[in-house]
Amino acid sequence: MKLASFRSACNSLRVYTSHPGSRFSGLFRRCFPVGITNNRLAIRAGSATTSSGTRSTLPANFGKQCKEELWSEYNYSVGEAVQRTKAAMVTLLRRNPEIQPLLAILQAGEDDSILEINKKIAGKVGLNVTQICLATGCSEDEIVEELLKLNNDPKVHGVYLHLPAASLTSRVLGALNPEKDVDGTTDLNMGRLVRGDASEGFVPPVAGAVLDLLGKHDAPLKVKSVLLVGGEGPLRLALQCLIERSGVEVNTSHWNSKSLQTQVMQADAVVLLGAGNMEVPPTWIRPEALIIHCEPALKPGVATCVAFDLINKQPHLSFLFWKTKSDHNCVGVKHASVVFNVIHSCNRWIQNQQYRPWRLRSLKLLPLTPVPSDIEISRAQTPKPVDQLAEEIGLLPEELEAYGRNKAKVQLSLLDRLHSQPDGNYVLVAGITPTPLGEGKSTVTIGLVQALSAHLKLNSFACLRQPSQGPTFGVKGGAAGGGYAQVIPMEEFNLHLTGDIHAITAANNLVAAAIDARMLHEATQSDKALFNRLVPTVNGVRTFSPIQISRLRRLGISKTEPTSLTPQEVSAFVRLDLDPSKITWQRVLDTNDRFLRKITVGQASTEKGQIRETGFDIAVASEIMAILALSDSLKDMKDRLAHMVVGTSRSGGPVTAEDLGVSGAVAVLMKDAIKPTLMQTLEGTPVFVHAGPFANIAHGNSSVLADKLALKLVGRDGFVVTEAGFGADIGMEKFFNIKCRASGLRPNVVVLVATVRALKMHGGGPNVSAGAPLPREYINENLSLVAGGCHSNLKKQIQIAHLFGVPVVVALNVFKTDTRAEIDLVCQIAKTCGASDAVPCHHWSQGGRGCLELAQAVKEATRRPSNFQFLYPTEMPIVEKIRTIAQKVYGANDMELSPEAKSKIDYYNQQGYGSLPICMAKTHLSLSHMADKKGAPTGFILPIRDIRASVGAGFIYPLVGTMSTMPGLPTRPCFYDIDLDPDTEEITGLF
Amino acid sequence: MKLASFRSACNSLRVYTSHPGSRFSGLFRRCFPVGITNNRLAIRAGSATTSSGTRSTLPANFGKQCKEELWSEYNYSVGEAVQRTKAAMVTLLRRNPEIQPLLAILQAGEDDSILEINKKIAGKVGLNVTQICLATGCSEDEIVEELLKLNNDPKVHGVYLHLPAASLTSRVLGALNPEKDVDGTTDLNMGRLVRGDASEGFVPPVAGAVLDLLGKHDAPLKVKSVLLVGGEGPLRLALQCLIERSGVEVNTSHWNSKSLQTQVMQADAVVLLGAGNMEVPPTWIRPEALIIHCEPALKPGVATCVAFDLINKQPHLSFLFWKTKSDHNCVGVKHASVVFNVIHSCNRWIQNQQYRPWRLRSLKLLPLTPVPSDIEISRAQTPKPVDQLAEEIGLLPEELEAYGRNKAKVQLSLLDRLHSQPDGNYVLVAGITPTPLGEGKSTVTIGLVQALSAHLKLNSFACLRQPSQGPTFGVKGGAAGGGYAQVIPMEEFNLHLTGDIHAITAANNLVAAAIDARMLHEATQSDKALFNRLVPTVNGVRTFSPIQISRLRRLGISKTEPTSLTPQEVSAFVRLDLDPSKITWQRVLDTNDRFLRKITVGQASTEKGQIRETGFDIAVASEIMAILALSDSLKDMKDRLAHMVVGTSRSGGPVTAEDLGVSGAVAVLMKDAIKPTLMQTLEGTPVFVHAGPFANIAHGNSSVLADKLALKLVGRDGFVVTEAGFGADIGMEKFFNIKCRASGLRPNVVVLVATVRALKMHGGGPNVSAGAPLPREYINENLSLVAGGCHSNLKKQIQIAHLFGVPVVVALNVFKTDTRAEIDLVCQIAKTCGASDAVPCHHWSQGGRGCLELAQAVKEATRRPSNFQFLYPTEMPIVEKIRTIAQKVYGANDMELSPEAKSKIDYYNQQGYGSLPICMAKTHLSLSHMADKKGAPTGFILPIRDIRASVGAGFIYPLVGTMSTMPGLPTRPCFYDIDLDPDTEEITGLF
Repeated sequence: MKLASFRSACNSLRVYTSHPGSRFSGLFRRCFPVGITNNRLAIRAGSATTSSGTRSTLPANFGKQCKEELWSEYNYSVGEAVQRTKAAMVTLLRRNPEIQPLLAILQAGEDDSILEINKKIAGKVGLNVTQICLATGCSEDEIVEELLKLNNDPKVHGVYLHLPAASLTSRVLGALNPEKDVDGTTDLNMGRLVRGDASEGFVPPVAGAVLDLLGKHDAPLKVKSVLLVGGEGPLRLALQCLIERSGVEVNTSHWNSKSLQTQVMQADAVVLLGAGNMEVPPTWIRPEALIIHCEPALKPGVATCVAFDLINKQPHLSFLFWKTKSDHNCVGVKHASVVFNVIHSCNRWIQNQQYRPWRLRSLKLLPLTPVPSDIEISRAQTPKPVDQLAEEIGLLPEELEAYGRNKAKVQLSLLDRLHSQPDGNYVLVAGITPTPLGEGKSTVTIGLVQALSAHLKLNSFACLRQPSQGPTFGVKGGAAGGGYAQVIPMEEFNLHLTGDIHAITAANNLVAAAIDARMLHEATQSDKALFNRLVPTVNGVRTFSPIQISRLRRLGISKTEPTSLTPQEVSAFVRLDLDPSKITWQRVLDTNDRFLRKITVGQASTEKGQIRETGFDIAVASEIMAILALSDSLKDMKDRLAHMVVGTSRSGGPVTAEDLGVSGAVAVLMKDAIKPTLMQTLEGTPVFVHAGPFANIAHGNSSVLADKLALKLVGRDGFVVTEAGFGADIGMEKFFNIKCRASGLRPNVVVLVATVRALKMHGGGPNVSAGAPLPREYINENLSLVAGGCHSNLKKQIQIAHLFGVPVVVALNVFKTDTRAEIDLVCQIAKTCGASDAVPCHHWSQGGRGCLELAQAVKEATRRPSNFQFLYPTEMPIVEKIRTIAQKVYGANDMELSPEAKSKIDYYNQQGYGSLPICMAKTHLSLSHMADKKGAPTGFILPIRDIRASVGAGFIYPLVGTMSTMPGLPTRPCFYDIDLDPDTEEITGLF
Repeated sequence: MKLASFRSACNSLRVYTSHPGSRFSGLFRRCFPVGITNNRLAIRAGSATTSSGTRSTLPANFGKQCKEELWSEYNYSVGEAVQRTKAAMVTLLRRNPEIQPLLAILQAGEDDSILEINKKIAGKVGLNVTQICLATGCSEDEIVEELLKLNNDPKVHGVYLHLPAASLTSRVLGALNPEKDVDGTTDLNMGRLVRGDASEGFVPPVAGAVLDLLGKHDAPLKVKSVLLVGGEGPLRLALQCLIERSGVEVNTSHWNSKSLQTQVMQADAVVLLGAGNMEVPPTWIRPEALIIHCEPALKPGVATCVAFDLINKQPHLSFLFWKTKSDHNCVGVKHASVVFNVIHSCNRWIQNQQYRPWRLRSLKLLPLTPVPSDIEISRAQTPKPVDQLAEEIGLLPEELEAYGRNKAKVQLSLLDRLHSQPDGNYVLVAGITPTPLGEGKSTVTIGLVQALSAHLKLNSFACLRQPSQGPTFGVKGGAAGGGYAQVIPMEEFNLHLTGDIHAITAANNLVAAAIDARMLHEATQSDKALFNRLVPTVNGVRTFSPIQISRLRRLGISKTEPTSLTPQEVSAFVRLDLDPSKITWQRVLDTNDRFLRKITVGQASTEKGQIRETGFDIAVASEIMAILALSDSLKDMKDRLAHMVVGTSRSGGPVTAEDLGVSGAVAVLMKDAIKPTLMQTLEGTPVFVHAGPFANIAHGNSSVLADKLALKLVGRDGFVVTEAGFGADIGMEKFFNIKCRASGLRPNVVVLVATVRALKMHGGGPNVSAGAPLPREYINENLSLVAGGCHSNLKKQIQIAHLFGVPVVVALNVFKTDTRAEIDLVCQIAKTCGASDAVPCHHWSQGGRGCLELAQAVKEATRRPSNFQFLYPTEMPIVEKIRTIAQKVYGANDMELSPEAKSKIDYYNQQGYGSLPICMAKTHLSLSHMADKKGAPTGFILPIRDIRASVGAGFIYPLVGTMSTMPGLPTRPCFYDIDLDPDTEEITGLF
């Protein structure tokens, strides 16, 4: 019986509240014996007790008059209860116009009276209801299947199971998400209630209704002791817990207990449960006592009719009166509705959407001295399960796609859900002109968020680029930060991640294969043969595919019937007529494979002599990577992919990926890559890893989408820290002029990373190179070299940031050889050069704690006004845009175009690409184009050797010197040290 | 107070059971008032009531004598309880010698008496205990962090939280996995208990102890009514539920209730909860009534001492006596141990490991006519969340690594966990010699498991190959099955999957890059320069890496000190001296890129003229793919990767991946790929997708590991259905001779797939080709062509299976053009040719239901003996092995070696590869080497053009004719139709 009775009991109409002073509160002191005739409500007889406790018998002719009175009282209470619930709903909807509260009813068979009641109540208060009607004899599997769908449907705020008791198995109840269990039937919600933490779950509506009847809702209970008679299982236990917790003594008794009479006579209120035909003799009841009758089963023809008659006049949330043979203070709870709980659920849901400081469980860091290797530090820390991290930062389970335990992709639908949430503060980490060793922008980025999140308890996110796998096995090693400022597990960050670069490789090379195959087929087939193959007859029908229709449109052909094309039109349609010498599309691999820099393809006899020279780039140099980084939606990405120009036809027109018919397939290959990957730092704070376009031929910044998602997740007072590749003259300039232009986002602060080592180099120190021992200038104190570097390169980079109107905080990444005097000198000069602040950072050796000063300085700087502005308008002619960057950013006197560059500019203007922003391809080792000119060179002319366009990504990239787009392997690549322990699965040798 | 009191109450010693007839049962009728002096147990005075119910006062000099008596009784009970628990443990360990039951105690601060008791009890019964001791003032975060580790640790069977009440927050309790909550404190376990489903959770030990005292354990309670006095919260509710559920009336009362006396006088048993200093006056108690005293708080110096004194003599599971001032039938529960619950947890855990029919929720299929496109069918079905599927088939959450919602990798540790589980039946699906259109082996494989699992309710698994992504965009389309026999979501199956092929591409090309870079560096550097770079001085120290030590060993140099090498040794070490014309390692891409079949690399000036001809294969043709498919552990894979031969040195020796120093890095790249991917069929039954070696130059079978995992998961009576590429003469022969040899697994049945279409072709029908309309012979009934095909090709393929001693079931994949007469004819001839059975299959149009006949036939055939044997022993000379296959399998008169093949055989024998099995590279379109010879050709000589070796994978592959290892794109590749809806994210055009 247990479940059945509980279920039936729960199927009772909720929730009337008696205010102590309300007209209706007198009801507690009266009894309304009610009889049923012809399916109509009828008041049979009655007596009422005044509140003073003396009895007064109703006149014998109570009859119709009483009925009216009852109705009027009833309607008042009903109206009030409905109004209260409705008001809650109105408030909800006013504050959250997008939300559509929805109750899902999962039922077996047709509607019955209980469902009708629930639906009417829902209608009255404006709650949407969806019904899933399974067959009466449906299987457990079918129920579970539907339940899982409802669990995962973010539009559903409450689920009400209206199923036969036999179907409410432990498996079915176990399948229902407790956060949607508005009926309070799941084990977890019952356990919460028993433990006293009902606030997290849902109270079974009928228990709530009884509590309301006892007057709990608006005031402390007046009764001192309550006796629960009969019933067993969840409903009684729920009542017991709730009443006890409100400070009232609860006793229980069975219908056949010998002490029942004594107990009834001593109770202030008696709740009758599972009575069936049992009754408490009126003589047992104290005059002032309140009797609440909970009928466990709806008896068709009796209870149902009462309900319906009332309902037809007024849908309600309230209790129904129930007949008793006594004339005592008796009210009955017949049915309580889940509607109020659904609104509660919605409110809770909405509250979870609101900005709030995260309850982030930070991971404790116990830094060792000397600092162990990166992989040892990473491995020593156990990351939080990524789904737990996601929950802590306010992601919904359905927005997460786990990739193993430590990584997950986040769905873009998050942007819709949080679109009204204000963005957090947007912080860019850039650097001074680096040495070939790198100056630690990534570690500063990670150390800063570790400090902000784990120590200052401010919501903050790091947005990082996904590293190419090539250099991981070459010279560079890992790119997950270093020391005690890392993303963990660092090996998962560095290898495969969630497959985005692999997807780019596949997509890029599908375009390449399509180009060569198409040229072969065009070279070996007539127009007619090509047309017959490109637009084949399938089952007697010949149609253009949508992508072919797009090409026809571009050719100016508006026909859609293949047979109606003229031979000229057929020829124009089938022949892309690519000029083999003008194909700009390269193949890519995510491997440092220098032998593929220049190759000849098509040498097998099957390719019929169609050989040509081409080459492979490293995968991150693919235009598709740049597109991934700049897209702000799936649609935007798809459009950009279609517009990629792969080469030029013999007649001089651009040929696009869409012309090849391949852009839809490319979008399909990229559909998961567009979702940023969530990981965590060593201190358990969130990180997005997404996109990593090459910083020399592309813009070198992580994705627009990751930044946008992160800004919503951190909320108003939070921080998103993102990183730009290379020095500020390149990475930051592109961040502002290209990425911010694409995203519409505006940065609040720039963190400019410097090292004493690099400053010394700019101050005149000797050159350094990776692998070679450092000259002594870099190991011993040398204040004059430091001062020289500060007054030249550091000063200039600060000025560049100010060109865009953004405040700068200088972060000095401290090495153990740096002296106190050197550190102080840098900070002091930086401030005189206009930095808002300048602080030393010790994140590498100390983690977030070592970056606290920086975190405070950044927090302070975000309070300053940021008057962000672009350096140039896009309408400015290409030449002027290049000149502006050369002069204002690099400090050149002017720039100079090669003849090739000049003719390209003409061509791009002709094709309508003139208004694209500029993405300079320049060495990162100097502000000038000459890698060995350190400091802040002046008086030079910037030579533009050639100009290319990434039309899909949306920028033009002038080449200043030769850019390598495929790194090589040294004699002893780092793969020599990389190994796997087959027993523990632990990786060694990644650093 | 709630939680605190509950916790203290639970921290009480468990569990004494009174057998009705035991000596000790008299205890219920006596009272042992106990006093404490000087931390020693002392019997102060006492009285006993005989079981007849009359009182008898103990003599005043009860004193020491009584103490002895008490001890003796006590020890008896204790001994019995300990023995019972110990016996349970012994049984557990005998049946499961590998298990080491482990209780984890998470505590704040040092041990206290309660922990000492628990640990002693644990020691007594042989339970291992691990203690995690946090600091007394530890934070919620720290507790949760430790809890999550314990949740995820498969070695921990129970977790006991010994923390201050204030630390037992809802977050902490919510973090504990209810399946390890042996103390029964989580909300879910409390909810289960309330609902009446305590069997799934854990009962709080103290509640269990009270129940035992009431005599429930061995017999129905003798008492008719129990009164619970005082207490509130979880403990009382738990008791209430448990006692009520055993059929006894429960009443509750408060200490200050007016009716307390009446209630006490009427109860058969009274349980006193949270008494503190409250007592029930002895005069209220009926003489025969039992009083159980549950003391909620351990009072130091009183309770603790009692516990210890007893404990020091005898660790126990039982209750302690508690003093009362009355002389009634009173016993006390002081502390109950969680030990028994841990054994319970272990047993449940083990039970979950045992073979059992899965409780698989199959997905309902409602096939439409006409059958829609594959992607439409796939999209119309909502797959189960993969973690749910995993749970249904007995995987533990920690063995799963989800990749999004629909795919997950399964950890190999499963093999250890289930190693004592018997394997299921092993079924191979092979085919007759196919037409170029394919005959539907994959759909039969999937249809068969749909029938077995979803309809016959037999545990079964399909093991499929991961398809190459190249053909998906070329001509082939998807490879996830078709119609109503598919793996879903089919687009995820066909695209990226979990990145295994991408990992192979990266690993393969890292080896290739290492080869060319090494040749360049050797060509441009002296021995000394090479040595200085390969074994650099780092921080003044110069050491060989482990992979370099391996190379030195192979060179016969046993030195480990770099400076001790002679110049000759240095030269031998640094120079691989690869012969550019004898490099066998190709690069790979998972793209159909025909222009890469033959290319020239190294043409950039940076490569200094080191150009050479090479080529790209499709990624699945990489030897690394064959290794993935044949490895049976991570260690095995790592060894095979190290042994891959990439080319030959100028002096004629093989050069391996390990020589290049790259094999560790390659293993690292492959470390996730080795885990099979779990997906599901349209009917929700499990599928492993893992590895997909090319069927022409490799063995064309899915992975050994997937089969092994699946065989354990389905268990004794289950079925694993795996598929071999091409016709049985190729795929099946390699399955037996190569894959089964590597795995040690033995197949029970071969399902041989045939189609009327292919049989007609073998019977003399005209050729067919993909894309072209079918000749009329294949559309209209033609019994003589069918009979011809049956008597030639079908018969021969059956005979091949019988060569290996395995029974054959012929599955006729029915097309709608097949007539009844044709179907009957095939089935009839097949049986006369020796097939165990032959049945038509309608899975494509009907799903599993259409494959029921086949499922029954396979089930039947597994009852027949399978006398599996290899075709040849590996020690047979290479030439003889090839001849055996040519004659016995293909039906050739003999074979003929080219001079090139002959010299290769000599070379391989010299290198010690002579005992590798043979992997023939032959056309799949004929039993012979001539694709156009249909039926069962005889009298031919098989020409062996060349021979190659995949030393890492472990086979030698003779080339019979030319094999294409890089497919091309047709004029209109299927990517033209593939597109993505950016709003719904739905893919169109995959078929």
